[in-house]
Amino acid sequence: MSQSLETPLSKVKRGPNRASYDKKQACAIIDAALMCHVGQTKDGQVFVTPTCHWREGDYFYWHAHSKARNVKGPIDDPEKVCINVSLLDGLVMARSAMHHSVNYRSVTLFGVPERVEEQDEKVRQFKLFLDKVSPGRWETLRPVNETEIKATGVVRIKIEEASVKFRAEPPIDAPEDYNWPVWAGVIPLERHWGTPQTDPVQQQIFAPAKPPEAF
Amino acid sequence: MSQSLETPLSKVKRGPNRASYDKKQACAIIDAALMCHVGQTKDGQVFVTPTCHWREGDYFYWHAHSKARNVKGPIDDPEKVCINVSLLDGLVMARSAMHHSVNYRSVTLFGVPERVEEQDEKVRQFKLFLDKVSPGRWETLRPVNETEIKATGVVRIKIEEASVKFRAEPPIDAPEDYNWPVWAGVIPLERHWGTPQTDPVQQQIFAPAKPPEAF
Ligand SMILES: Cc1cc2nc3c(=O)[nH]c(=O)nc-3n(C[C@H](O)[C@H](O)[C@H](O)COP(=O)(O)OP(=O)(O)OC[C@H]3O[C@@H](n4cnc5c(N)ncnc54)[C@H](O)[C@@H]3O)c2cc1C
Ligand SMILES: Cc1cc2nc3c(=O)[nH]c(=O)nc-3n(C[C@H](O)[C@H](O)[C@H](O)COP(=O)(O)OP(=O)(O)OC[C@H]3O[C@@H](n4cnc5c(N)ncnc54)[C@H](O)[C@@H]3O)c2cc1C
Ligand code: HEM
Ligand code: HEM
Repeated sequence: MSQSLETPLSKVKRGPNRASYDKKQACAIIDAALMCHVGQTKDGQVFVTPTCHWREGDYFYWHAHSKARNVKGPIDDPEKVCINVSLLDGLVMARSAMHHSVNYRSVTLFGVPERVEEQDEKVRQFKLFLDKVSPGRWETLRPVNETEIKATGVVRIKIEEASVKFRAEPPIDAPEDYNWPVWAGVIPLERHWGTPQTDPVQQQIFAPAKPPEAF
Repeated sequence: MSQSLETPLSKVKRGPNRASYDKKQACAIIDAALMCHVGQTKDGQVFVTPTCHWREGDYFYWHAHSKARNVKGPIDDPEKVCINVSLLDGLVMARSAMHHSVNYRSVTLFGVPERVEEQDEKVRQFKLFLDKVSPGRWETLRPVNETEIKATGVVRIKIEEASVKFRAEPPIDAPEDYNWPVWAGVIPLERHWGTPQTDPVQQQIFAPAKPPEAF
């Protein structure tokens, strides 16, 4: 599973020291994030849509209403979309303004989406999506019905043309600036799932859903 | 400052009940976020670049190396870019799979970028950017020099064609599902700035930088 994802399109030119084309690393970042940004065009105009995603093996999946742009557009009019998945990990505070930065994990993917058509396969994918969002929850839910399956568009791209970029280190200042009298370092961004807020209309008491490992 | 940002391009068709075109609301979300995703094209291929942004009045700014795609591309070859700024606020756990969702604040902006050319104005913008990232820090840093100013591309779009979409509520299930015996509600996502990590090479002790209100 660890072949290179590098192609002319996904080759990092700016900051290649921060780049990787390792599929395992890309998948780890994809799995650690709940949302991505899907870029596509329509009549020459670019659109960027924030979207939740999940992964199975070599495939990156997302869903929306079957008529939504980000699942219908690139199927009606096949196009290589560009998707970015980014996690902001910290603020990098340098001694000079220009060397300020952020620590991050980021994956950019390219691919022509294909639609998942088959009903049973769609339902299997819904389960995988739910398993990511809240492990064990799928089995406890009111089962999906045919209207819901039809209303939902599920698309995927193969993870084969992509790049990883990440930064996870202290500031890097110019050598002559290291004695500038100001604090320098990283302020990490921490994320966690807070106290579950039960639906106010719910009377009976149940154990809250399990939150995901992803953010 | 509160005129409508609605245009044919920014008009929300899916889920218009979640939409707003109020500039104040858009600006509040822009200011609450450190990063955005810039969508643009090059020879018909779409690219999405995660980027830090800031705002002054009616303008949305970002920066990169003066030769980076997201600051050079749409200047060399003017194009209406699409930028999304999203904050994930929680996971919405419903009684049925399909009514699962996320609570979020999101702004989509369209505009043809213009470059900030003038040196003094660039430096003034650097300060505004730093003021967002760490209030009061600019004055304590090694001042920027001409090489740095030249190396940095700063671009902006006017906030005049945009849409806000947000969700901040419990799950909404089908009426017949409200008695399904499973926990339903929202699990909020919490973010905060962790303990500052001083650059390991720093010997002298300084007060750490102030983290921003934005995430
Ligand atoms: C964190 C997050 C995760 C999401 N996950 C999913 C998901 O998994 N599946 C899903 O169906 N939807 C998801 N959404 C909503 C998604 O972004 C779109 O709103 C939805 O897919 C409809 O897109 P459309 O282009 O078909 O809408 P249209 O209504 O046709 O778009 C028309 C115009 O509405 C505006 N608009 C559309 N979406 C947004 C937005 N998010 N923010 C601001 N303006 C907008 C734009 O100006 C756009 O040009 C998510 C949103 C967020 C913020
Ligand atoms: C949270 C965050 C904030 C950022 N803020 C800024 C900022 O404010 N200013 C700035 O200059 N840069 C920022 N970056 C880096 C930025 O995303 C780009 O890497 C940089 O602008 C160079 O882009 P380019 O298209 O010119 O690079 P090129 O190297 O020319 O791009 C070529 C290929 O490299 C790959 N690539 C480029 N960027 C990324 C990426 N981020 N992740 C994965 N693959 C990538 C893509 O496959 C792309 O097609 C940020 C990154 C993250 C994750
Ligand atoms: C205000 C003064 C600043 C100047 C003059 C400046 C300048 C630059 C330049 C020239 C680059 C391009 C580096 C390259 O691609 O070779 C760059 C990249 C970058 N800048 Fe800034 N910057 C400034 C502040 C900031 C701040 C405050 C942040 C973060 C909050 C930031 C975040 C970044 C990031 C994330 C990159 C990409 C580096 C990477 O890919 O690892 N910059 N900046
Ligand atoms: C797995 C079973 C699921 C099905 C069948 C399903 C189906 C759908 C459908 C049909 C829509 C379109 C609504 C519309 O635009 O009219 C939609 C939107 C959406 N879905 Fe799902 N969904 C499922 C699970 C999830 C999960 C687990 C999440 C979140 C983690 C999620 C997040 C969203 C979001 C954010 C929207 C956009 C709603 C908005 O803009 O407010 N969905 N889903």
